[in-house]
Amino acid sequence: MTGARPRGFFAGRTITGLARDLDAGVLSAAELVEHALDAIVALDQALNAFVTVDAGGARLAARRADAERAAGTHRGPLHGIPVAVKDIIDTAGLATRMGSAHFADHVPAQDATCVRRLREAGAIIVGKTTTHEFAYGPTGDRSHNGPSRNPHDPARMTGGSSGGSAAAVAAGMVPLAVGTDTGGSVRIPAALCGVVGFKPAFGAVPVDGVFPLASSLDHVGVLAGTAEDCALAFHVLSGRPQGPAAAEADDEGDAGAPRVGWLASDAATLADPMVSGLVRAAFPGSDEIPFSGVSELFGTYAAIQGSEAYAVHADRVARAPELFDPEVLRRLRHASAVPGWRYVRALEARASFRRHAAGLLGRYDLLALPSVAVAAPPIDARDLDLGGVQVKVRDVLLALTSPWNLAGLPALSVPAGTVGGLPVGAQLVCAPGRERTLFAYADRLRARLG
Amino acid sequence: MTGARPRGFFAGRTITGLARDLDAGVLSAAELVEHALDAIVALDQALNAFVTVDAGGARLAARRADAERAAGTHRGPLHGIPVAVKDIIDTAGLATRMGSAHFADHVPAQDATCVRRLREAGAIIVGKTTTHEFAYGPTGDRSHNGPSRNPHDPARMTGGSSGGSAAAVAAGMVPLAVGTDTGGSVRIPAALCGVVGFKPAFGAVPVDGVFPLASSLDHVGVLAGTAEDCALAFHVLSGRPQGPAAAEADDEGDAGAPRVGWLASDAATLADPMVSGLVRAAFPGSDEIPFSGVSELFGTYAAIQGSEAYAVHADRVARAPELFDPEVLRRLRHASAVPGWRYVRALEARASFRRHAAGLLGRYDLLALPSVAVAAPPIDARDLDLGGVQVKVRDVLLALTSPWNLAGLPALSVPAGTVGGLPVGAQLVCAPGRERTLFAYADRLRARLG
Repeated sequence: MTGARPRGFFAGRTITGLARDLDAGVLSAAELVEHALDAIVALDQALNAFVTVDAGGARLAARRADAERAAGTHRGPLHGIPVAVKDIIDTAGLATRMGSAHFADHVPAQDATCVRRLREAGAIIVGKTTTHEFAYGPTGDRSHNGPSRNPHDPARMTGGSSGGSAAAVAAGMVPLAVGTDTGGSVRIPAALCGVVGFKPAFGAVPVDGVFPLASSLDHVGVLAGTAEDCALAFHVLSGRPQGPAAAEADDEGDAGAPRVGWLASDAATLADPMVSGLVRAAFPGSDEIPFSGVSELFGTYAAIQGSEAYAVHADRVARAPELFDPEVLRRLRHASAVPGWRYVRALEARASFRRHAAGLLGRYDLLALPSVAVAAPPIDARDLDLGGVQVKVRDVLLALTSPWNLAGLPALSVPAGTVGGLPVGAQLVCAPGRERTLFAYADRLRARLG
Repeated sequence: MTGARPRGFFAGRTITGLARDLDAGVLSAAELVEHALDAIVALDQALNAFVTVDAGGARLAARRADAERAAGTHRGPLHGIPVAVKDIIDTAGLATRMGSAHFADHVPAQDATCVRRLREAGAIIVGKTTTHEFAYGPTGDRSHNGPSRNPHDPARMTGGSSGGSAAAVAAGMVPLAVGTDTGGSVRIPAALCGVVGFKPAFGAVPVDGVFPLASSLDHVGVLAGTAEDCALAFHVLSGRPQGPAAAEADDEGDAGAPRVGWLASDAATLADPMVSGLVRAAFPGSDEIPFSGVSELFGTYAAIQGSEAYAVHADRVARAPELFDPEVLRRLRHASAVPGWRYVRALEARASFRRHAAGLLGRYDLLALPSVAVAAPPIDARDLDLGGVQVKVRDVLLALTSPWNLAGLPALSVPAGTVGGLPVGAQLVCAPGRERTLFAYADRLRARLG
């Protein structure tokens, strides 16, 4: 983060540290909420990270959290912690607009399961964050409430679709935000905004109450300043608020350093060599594994995502096409033309990639690669010149994240330095059940690079 | 079966009876093979049930079977029994042509698992039976080796795609034949030819070595004179040659008569009332359950089957379209246009129907309905006049069988009488694990109606 930009209270603070202060009585939940609200007032006009700020609800919840704590009830490390929630995730009684004019007046009656779990863990929902319309885009700059803006340069995109969640954490407005990730929608904005973003294994966090994008690829994920904070939130969201039980702890006995394999993408045209070089340098001594067929995998992803997304939106497109953003509508119509047999073949290709990835994770504890092989492009940019080759921004943003949605594997983006003053993310992938190794390694990497 | 037509040795004989005669030394496997070969010579010029007859291989296998028996090795009830195998199922060293010019010279190196299991149980493969080209059609009258013909009237279709297998059993050329069933391809020709045809639960019999039609709908099934004979073959094909172990026996303790629910289809235009009336009368006293949305279910089936089939054939269509039967090619090209999002919605509709069917099978042991609500149409007929309404033969043939491929449930067609001298089949559906109830009830029904 460029030091000159204004940052909110939570910048540089961890949930672990805040929880310690809450426990010690140095801070109260009510104070934390005021810090969040102050930061939002100060910063969000420039960043548009929030669609809805629930000052009243947050203050009420904070008072309740403080009272519970005073009465001796301790709900765990998120008790009293302000959280922002992406605006495609249902929050009871609080508008949830999906970034879309179709849902301008939508107020859900119930919390999504992930939100309910956060509340039960004592977390305080301060507001809803800007999402790319219906989460259908990795740029974060098409939303009924306008584009979210990158705290490192508000003329640049946050990436998306969980752009507001990334900006809110990156700017220090909240210490934690929830997002969703169908092709990289947590990890892309985490990388572009310089925070940690974690997409769990497929199915590890329930998606009910989350507006679907592509049902076989959708994941709920989290964004925070550290991997350890992501881990705390992940345990809550996955229904294991105390973290994995001792018996489940995958790598307790894993004394040695994890074996890390570097995935060398064959899609050279989809990368800025400055960015991929910087990330590669973060893993000295790791084996280099050829990662071939990246463009074909992206075609596989696009066929599945497009078919499943249009199945969600077909009736809405027929009924009220004018309520869509024109680019989103154009992309949906394009997706409607994917033939069924291509979808079937894409499912076969996905199954084959899953076997390949499982094989790699039999040999390596972690796979490493860039999260996104460029720094944040300008808002509204749709093409990039990379070494004289014109490439689509969308393809570049999704190329290295979407394979892990196909595979359904846990994947995390961690800040790995800056290029031209803009953050760059390293991506780490592990087998389900090996998340502790992933989180611990990511924070060591963050400490080493930062 | 109209009595005047010539019938082979196996007509009216059961595997159980033949096995008893083999055990008693009254008959030998070598004699059974000669009976099968004689019947094929006598009858098959008119019926075209067989593509390939393996006289040499069958005689060799019969001698081996007899020698084993003489030496005291007894492989179970199929030991020495002649069997016919649909020509889309691989047989090592024996041509397997898929009913297609594309595979005119194809000789597999390995047996399909189902064939290997038959051989291990002592069954003797006498030949390969005519299939609708690539099993892609329920009429049985488009095949590179010509249409199979109905033993009850050779001017009429057998139904398909396992038409040759049904004709071979119905004409008494073999006591048992193996087929495949993706939308009814075992049950439809069983009904139209007047034999018993059983489609197991999805996945109960391995499909490796079977040319795919639609991978999420494909089943290997069996055709025989009685449900008990189907049961014997099913146990062999499912890898449990001795039948279910006592502990697995679902309904040993089921003393009472099974609860049968009659499914009253809402697709009235897709039925000859004479046929559906005859089948309905076979279940007096059964509850009547509305079976609504039959046409919509057929659309669901068509979207899934078409997309998966084109995924199998796309490269072949591009490379050598002239090798396809024109109607099959036209249908494949039509299938290529199903959009991916329709496939996705069809999977959702299938999941919903599965839940509905599971609910019904919580209340009833068996569901009953016609297998096909018309008698065998003439070969090459593509439209039928049913009560003044023109309907497509394909739609009528598949309407009541294909739902059970969507549901993946065990389903059986049993002869239920004749209309205009042509056989009509009753269909019974059960929950997986309740096959014993199904087989026993079907044979009681057959005895009562015959």
